[in-house]
Amino acid sequence: MERNKIRPLRLKDVVITGSFWNRYMEQIRTHVIQYQWEALNDRVEDAKRSHCIKNFEIAAGKRQGDFYGMVFQDSDLYKWLESVAYSLAIHPDPALEALADEAIALIGAAQQPDGYINTYYTVKYPERRWTNLQHGHELYCAGHLFEAAVAYYDATGKRAALDIAIRFADYIDTVFGLEAGKLDGYPGHQEIELALFKLYETTGERRYLLLAAYFIKQRGREPNYFDLEWEKPEYREIFPEITPLARTYSQSHLLPEEQRVATGHAVRAVYMYCAMADLAAEMDDAALLKALDALYTDITTKQMYITGAIGSVAWGERFTGAYDLPNDQIYGETCASVGLMMFCRRMNAMHLDARYGDTMELALYNTVLAGTSLAGTEFFYVNPLHVEPERIHVNPNLSHVKPVRQKWFDCACCPSNLARTVMGLGLYAYGATTDGLYVNLYCAGSARDGARHIEVQTDYPYSSDATFKVSGGFFRLYLRNPQYAPVERITVNGEVVQPQIENGYIVLERDWSGDVVAIQFDMRPKRMYCTNEVQHNIGSTAIMRGPLVYCMEQVDNGPCLGAFRLPDDAPITEITPPDGLLPEVVALTAPAYQYKQAEDALYTEQKPMLAPSQLTLIPYFLWANRGENEMRVYVPTLEQTP
Amino acid sequence: MERNKIRPLRLKDVVITGSFWNRYMEQIRTHVIQYQWEALNDRVEDAKRSHCIKNFEIAAGKRQGDFYGMVFQDSDLYKWLESVAYSLAIHPDPALEALADEAIALIGAAQQPDGYINTYYTVKYPERRWTNLQHGHELYCAGHLFEAAVAYYDATGKRAALDIAIRFADYIDTVFGLEAGKLDGYPGHQEIELALFKLYETTGERRYLLLAAYFIKQRGREPNYFDLEWEKPEYREIFPEITPLARTYSQSHLLPEEQRVATGHAVRAVYMYCAMADLAAEMDDAALLKALDALYTDITTKQMYITGAIGSVAWGERFTGAYDLPNDQIYGETCASVGLMMFCRRMNAMHLDARYGDTMELALYNTVLAGTSLAGTEFFYVNPLHVEPERIHVNPNLSHVKPVRQKWFDCACCPSNLARTVMGLGLYAYGATTDGLYVNLYCAGSARDGARHIEVQTDYPYSSDATFKVSGGFFRLYLRNPQYAPVERITVNGEVVQPQIENGYIVLERDWSGDVVAIQFDMRPKRMYCTNEVQHNIGSTAIMRGPLVYCMEQVDNGPCLGAFRLPDDAPITEITPPDGLLPEVVALTAPAYQYKQAEDALYTEQKPMLAPSQLTLIPYFLWANRGENEMRVYVPTLEQTP
Repeated sequence: MERNKIRPLRLKDVVITGSFWNRYMEQIRTHVIQYQWEALNDRVEDAKRSHCIKNFEIAAGKRQGDFYGMVFQDSDLYKWLESVAYSLAIHPDPALEALADEAIALIGAAQQPDGYINTYYTVKYPERRWTNLQHGHELYCAGHLFEAAVAYYDATGKRAALDIAIRFADYIDTVFGLEAGKLDGYPGHQEIELALFKLYETTGERRYLLLAAYFIKQRGREPNYFDLEWEKPEYREIFPEITPLARTYSQSHLLPEEQRVATGHAVRAVYMYCAMADLAAEMDDAALLKALDALYTDITTKQMYITGAIGSVAWGERFTGAYDLPNDQIYGETCASVGLMMFCRRMNAMHLDARYGDTMELALYNTVLAGTSLAGTEFFYVNPLHVEPERIHVNPNLSHVKPVRQKWFDCACCPSNLARTVMGLGLYAYGATTDGLYVNLYCAGSARDGARHIEVQTDYPYSSDATFKVSGGFFRLYLRNPQYAPVERITVNGEVVQPQIENGYIVLERDWSGDVVAIQFDMRPKRMYCTNEVQHNIGSTAIMRGPLVYCMEQVDNGPCLGAFRLPDDAPITEITPPDGLLPEVVALTAPAYQYKQAEDALYTEQKPMLAPSQLTLIPYFLWANRGENEMRVYVPTLEQTP
Repeated sequence: MERNKIRPLRLKDVVITGSFWNRYMEQIRTHVIQYQWEALNDRVEDAKRSHCIKNFEIAAGKRQGDFYGMVFQDSDLYKWLESVAYSLAIHPDPALEALADEAIALIGAAQQPDGYINTYYTVKYPERRWTNLQHGHELYCAGHLFEAAVAYYDATGKRAALDIAIRFADYIDTVFGLEAGKLDGYPGHQEIELALFKLYETTGERRYLLLAAYFIKQRGREPNYFDLEWEKPEYREIFPEITPLARTYSQSHLLPEEQRVATGHAVRAVYMYCAMADLAAEMDDAALLKALDALYTDITTKQMYITGAIGSVAWGERFTGAYDLPNDQIYGETCASVGLMMFCRRMNAMHLDARYGDTMELALYNTVLAGTSLAGTEFFYVNPLHVEPERIHVNPNLSHVKPVRQKWFDCACCPSNLARTVMGLGLYAYGATTDGLYVNLYCAGSARDGARHIEVQTDYPYSSDATFKVSGGFFRLYLRNPQYAPVERITVNGEVVQPQIENGYIVLERDWSGDVVAIQFDMRPKRMYCTNEVQHNIGSTAIMRGPLVYCMEQVDNGPCLGAFRLPDDAPITEITPPDGLLPEVVALTAPAYQYKQAEDALYTEQKPMLAPSQLTLIPYFLWANRGENEMRVYVPTLEQTP
């Protein structure tokens, strides 16, 4: 029995126009997609080498040479293609579509007669397929191919990519499973599971659902597949440098339905939780849902940064444990927060509860958007909350943290993941059930679900107003009431109303025929405090305004940001942004103090004195757009002795 | 021309009686030396395996088997022997001497016909001597053998160990140098250089001085020996897992006389500086002295913790850069602070300046002493200033930090280094020049230099008084005026005097004949502040009393030490120590506040409130003697809004 579940709208039915999001989307459509294509073709100067397209050409027999790059380099092309698909869905573009068709043809040419595609194995180790599921990433790449193929089919109606995906999926279905002669393994990096759900939804082929369910349910069974794999000599033949990984790293330490604490590689974890949610919703699986509720609670109450970043340590790019949230040595991978958004969307869909949308919004407006420069062509992989560039340059424990965005990466998962997420924003912004239309993200534009139609005007997240022109007959309009910017005033056709609140949604029910709903968010800057369990944040505050977390940057405040002290009662006011940011940005300022040292000595009895100062804060996601400099999110407070 | 230099007294001429030091020395003499011997023989239950003695037995042909342990495992026995030598010098003990003679005979039996001794190479790779100077540690082990041999000869007059050392040194002298047919390399881990000086001083053999000078002066010359060595296939044969090391790691990036910034492995660095100082003093080498002054200043004004710990990062156990002094991820190896003491003693000897004694004292009373438990049989290798055990258990960046002392280590350099340092304390405490007697450390007992004699009564570092009964004719008595506990009052034979202060020393000159000098130190607890450059210490204070740095422990204050706030004007008073410490310990207490969270949430708008509380502090070196718990040195302050 299918649960009552929020389904996303079709991307073609969502229009996003407002300056905040349209700027990003137009930049990606007109510029970033082309930039990333150039990067995949190694035509960006001074950028890290990709070789991705060349790998496909070599695998397709169109070029001589050796494979170069990460074992999962193929996925960069697939995620690029997914971005293109979303772009085409919202903005047809024959030239871009022709480029994508060319890329799809290349992927098809690299497909082996039995349906297999992976340029790493095809070029380097054709006889070693599936011998190293933990590190090989063949199933991971397949998943990204499936996601791209489904998106491209939805956008264009063209089957070429979808047929490639189907042939590969059918082949994989012959290889994996519990039947005799099949491998009873599962991917080292989860991704194919959620992609198989999409393939199932698009094709209606139940085998894909069952294969996804198999991959999910097989993980964590004894004997552990990865333990057995490790014992085989061919396993280490290809990756001699690898060392055994903890089972928790790949979330194979327990059956998924038994898991309660988010562990291991953060991206793998949240991608798995997405697939678990897909399966829980599809099968009405209470055990899985119980696990998901616990995992979501564990992440959001013990292991998530206030920016929606997850993954506390570079070593394993992973969750570490409750309240271990270092601001400077964080991993906080852009992709992990993309995955968290994906997970939140599914939890929201199942529970019809707005709080998942709050977390999704936090991750989006802070960590995910921080992943790209204003120019759109530089990227963060790691998203710290505290940066002292001089320490990063000398301390190897900080060497994974970059103080400025990079043009490309050896492991370039994040740029394309960010692009596909922004271009697919419509999938996150709205949803529908039989009884109504859900607004989960506030962005100007419009959305249609059958006859139901809504037009949105807002400058959210900067402005505190949004208006909705709603039509399409009798249905319920669900407006997410953001935890960090609660709606303070609601009018319908100019009349103040006191609507019902349900699971964090403002619910307005009527026979809509062009009625105008206007809401006002509480966008006053807020001081947020972290639990004492995160000891290094005690006595500090993070400033938020709406969903935006703010930060101090050296370029606005001078060096030594750690010397600032913000009095508890200092008013925080809105100001026009400093030069180099966009004019619509809301910056903040507050009177503060700064410790001035009395003596130039490493250690001294001379007490530093507090001198009056002024603090400027900008939205966190905009940091490091004005060169390398110090940054910090948590501002130490100045407290009156009680 | 030899400089006017402070020379250490003979250990036999120094008696240390006071309860503070006598307790440690008696414990080492009667218990720890035996414990370490048992550890070297793998007879301590639940301790890490040593195999050290067995390695010697195998190399000597007395036992079958393979080598086990670090490539420098031999040095554990040598440092043990050095401790034994110091112990015998101050307290004859025929049974212990017999045990040492037995160990020396074993070392001799492992010596090869040409004089070479190294059980790792002799047992495993006899044909591969000197093929890997960077990692092989053959010269490092030789150095510790020489130091032990000299100490044992000084203590007992027996030549067996010294003759072994001489044979080895003579052989090494045929292998290394710039002459044709010799290797023009130098040790990866400095140590033999300073040991060759000792061998030279004891034997008068100038070849050892020249060999030490060669090892020092050859380092850093182009082409870099380690770079060339790396290219040789036999280099990596033995250590396939090694990766190329930065030249800075081994301080081979520049000629020693050109070095100005302390870099690389901290122990290697300070051991090298010691030898540079020996050479500078012996040869009156102004270029070396200039480098040493800069290196000392760099360490003590930019790269040293307030506890006298050095080495900010586990990766490379090394210096990182100016002001990069993380309190929790510190390395701060016990051995590095032993090396810093050694370096300070030599700088003090050359410059006749008390400030080097201050740093030596800081390192000794804080980091070095922290290296051992009160029981004397558990040890710290890493000496953090901030410990949250729960984070250590989950975060791999903290995994090198142990929240409680360990019984033994795979790499067990620190326990024996600590023991030899404490047993050799007399070498650090006093010194002499032609014109006078220097008191650098205050410990009850007596010291003799020819006719000059001094008797000291004090309970330093706890008490604020010390009296000296001085005799021996006309000379100058130099009493170090501690920077952290300046002398406030001086009497000679009961009369207050206003003595001359010279280079940080109180200088009293007269014809001494049993005169009594009494001094009073300023032992009031002090709040120390760190430069703003170390941003995480801004707004915090470290409490000191005399040379002792204090810390908060969870066992006295409850969990969540980061929630405490110490008002700037709160009086800090002395109290009797908590149970589990020694009764003479001076503990401190102060009224303080603690942040109490308003809501049990990871992030909240509810501001935590400050509640009155009381803070207990104990000397840092005593931390973790009462089980695993939180600890921190820096206490956040509570500041009145100006």
